[in-house]
Amino acid sequence: MDRVLTNLKMVTMQPGTDYLIIENGMIGIQDGKIMLAGHARYDDLHGHPDVVDCQGALVTPGLIDCHTHLVFAGNRANEFEQRLNGVPYEEIAKAGGGIISTVHATRTASEDELYELAVQRLNGLKQDGVTTIEIKSGYGLTLADELKMLRVARRIGEMEDIKVSTTLLAAHALPPEYAGRADDYIDFVCREIIPAATKEKLADAVDVFCEGIGFSTEQCLRVFTAAKQHGLNIKGHTEQLSNLGGSALAARMGATSVDHIEYLDSEGVTALATGNTVATLLPGAFYFLRESQQPPIKLLRQNNVPMAIATDFNPGTSPIASLRTVMNMGCTLFRLTPEECLRGVTANAAQALGLHDTRGQIRVGMEADLAIWNLETPAELSYRLGVPDLIARVVDGHLFPSSGEKHNAN
Amino acid sequence: MDRVLTNLKMVTMQPGTDYLIIENGMIGIQDGKIMLAGHARYDDLHGHPDVVDCQGALVTPGLIDCHTHLVFAGNRANEFEQRLNGVPYEEIAKAGGGIISTVHATRTASEDELYELAVQRLNGLKQDGVTTIEIKSGYGLTLADELKMLRVARRIGEMEDIKVSTTLLAAHALPPEYAGRADDYIDFVCREIIPAATKEKLADAVDVFCEGIGFSTEQCLRVFTAAKQHGLNIKGHTEQLSNLGGSALAARMGATSVDHIEYLDSEGVTALATGNTVATLLPGAFYFLRESQQPPIKLLRQNNVPMAIATDFNPGTSPIASLRTVMNMGCTLFRLTPEECLRGVTANAAQALGLHDTRGQIRVGMEADLAIWNLETPAELSYRLGVPDLIARVVDGHLFPSSGEKHNAN
Ligand SMILES: [Zn+2]
Ligand SMILES: [Zn+2]
Repeated sequence: MDRVLTNLKMVTMQPGTDYLIIENGMIGIQDGKIMLAGHARYDDLHGHPDVVDCQGALVTPGLIDCHTHLVFAGNRANEFEQRLNGVPYEEIAKAGGGIISTVHATRTASEDELYELAVQRLNGLKQDGVTTIEIKSGYGLTLADELKMLRVARRIGEMEDIKVSTTLLAAHALPPEYAGRADDYIDFVCREIIPAATKEKLADAVDVFCEGIGFSTEQCLRVFTAAKQHGLNIKGHTEQLSNLGGSALAARMGATSVDHIEYLDSEGVTALATGNTVATLLPGAFYFLRESQQPPIKLLRQNNVPMAIATDFNPGTSPIASLRTVMNMGCTLFRLTPEECLRGVTANAAQALGLHDTRGQIRVGMEADLAIWNLETPAELSYRLGVPDLIARVVDGHLFPSSGEKHNAN
Repeated sequence: MDRVLTNLKMVTMQPGTDYLIIENGMIGIQDGKIMLAGHARYDDLHGHPDVVDCQGALVTPGLIDCHTHLVFAGNRANEFEQRLNGVPYEEIAKAGGGIISTVHATRTASEDELYELAVQRLNGLKQDGVTTIEIKSGYGLTLADELKMLRVARRIGEMEDIKVSTTLLAAHALPPEYAGRADDYIDFVCREIIPAATKEKLADAVDVFCEGIGFSTEQCLRVFTAAKQHGLNIKGHTEQLSNLGGSALAARMGATSVDHIEYLDSEGVTALATGNTVATLLPGAFYFLRESQQPPIKLLRQNNVPMAIATDFNPGTSPIASLRTVMNMGCTLFRLTPEECLRGVTANAAQALGLHDTRGQIRVGMEADLAIWNLETPAELSYRLGVPDLIARVVDGHLFPSSGEKHNAN
């Protein structure tokens, strides 16, 4: 084995309804994979070249943020401030605010500029133990600019200490050039953007915004069909503001996840259960928009629908680059348990990205992505905010100590 | 001058209704005080030994967290988890949970143990640019244990990079030894604990929990009277869960601040205005407890009552060691403007601690406590969460670079 971690409290998150913790655990890593995960057997270690004594630290799977819009340019703090100073939304929109301001700034920015901005934001997520992040396009809305965003996302994934899943979200908003011609834009997405992204291997999945202010279920169906023809995963922003049936449509077509889902009804929940589609909850947007409609947590539980949690990091509705903050919101605002929150950013988040066979659990055969914490119990991950609790992350077996304040473990 | 900071966007927070920003600013520091604060005059600097080029960074007063319970032992994540798993509060309390569990753990802990725990939590606040923090006692509830907590707080204040205001909160909860004898406990607080804390110079202020589940206004009056006789500032946890009139009482007696105040009425607001008492808002506890009663923000504005914001960091109702997170909650949940939030953690927070003449603004004569940010506008401090934006803090003129990820400024 290349490396052995000993003396750890191992929170495996293997399938079940509990954390499945192994006390006094040991993890052996070879070629970036977990080769051994269980109770410590110190007699195996004599003379091993690379043994890391974790001094009793808590070790979880590396966290996975399965829904972000990390790549964009522009700054909407001014808009946030204007609204709090009483400027009406219409006036802000007329002055070029809202999502269109992000689209303009993103179109204007170079790949290098977008990369630098995203890397800075990513540092926040890394300090929360994130080892895999999903990144969507959706602020380009032209062929060139959507591909540009995805190239930036792929380039971030070339960093040694983070893994990236990319999602093409060309059907995020109607670009101003297509005003009044939504079907034409969807044609363009299906005939030009999806094939080009596929050809350049830039997208792992395709996403849509299915909503009255987004695209209709018929339009989403066309996007999903094109995506599947190109062998890509599908997922949706669905039932956020109203119940159009987008989640059920996506689930029937084999979506890996449907996201937001505050307005999901029992029929939709049944469709998710049947399709084994993950329900991804985004409490940061719920909080930021001061929504009152709660996602149907109890129904999802009763139907054994896997639930994930993600930051939805974006400049308009969730400027929160902290997965632990949204885990706390999952508990506080949605009454999820800390175990559901941790499963929602590990095993179930992996499933939301179609990666449940290789990530999100501590188990032999999985990729060696871990987070090592200066904490006593996994519930603290959802409970306490702000304290730099991360000691180190492990990505493909490589150790990356936290850049935060000093801790007493290695 | 010992040190000069140049090329900075200076957010002075001097009195007014705006940030009072000086572009292309310069700050000169001597003997830990600001000796120059204004537009850059580069001709003054030839041959100066210590010039820091801030490369256009945003510089604010060092942030002040004016209400925390940072010093305690024990861990209540388990209780948080039990409640989310449906265990009734009564059952948790019977099993020794709630504030009494924190009291037991704090009584048992040594000063060294309490210090180590607090310093770890403090690291979170430092990463948010905090240079002054208030720390309350209130989990000891015996003479020895209250003084022990305050000694730990004073010891934290001996660190070079943080300043501490201490507050004696012996009237936080009725200790179990005094069950049914609240007046006797208040006697003990007034006759023994306040004089002893004063004698050892351990307390800058005295605080009370004025509430049906805390102490009556009559009892608070006795504590305030004793505190004033000993020359200490006074402040109160008031009008959090009901309207007992504690805020008005405190204001009439010259309190520097009253804190929580969700149930404050117009009479109370008038008393604060008359007394020039700061209204300290604690949105973290409001969020964590899922309260719906909003503090009377509009009335406070109309009456020109200075508003502060603080974390109320504590294990039971606000386990949030992030001042920027509660600034965001101030905007999102209480509809404060970002300017009000920044004033609430600078100039007004200083006033809540009786320190408005020396801290909380960038102005000649003030102590040289600053936060240097990789941000474009001060609104971003309240808008965006999770990104490690802090470049450095300055405390009494000494520079402390952030331990977070690398930035492109010094
Ligand atoms: Zn989204
Ligand atoms: Zn408090």
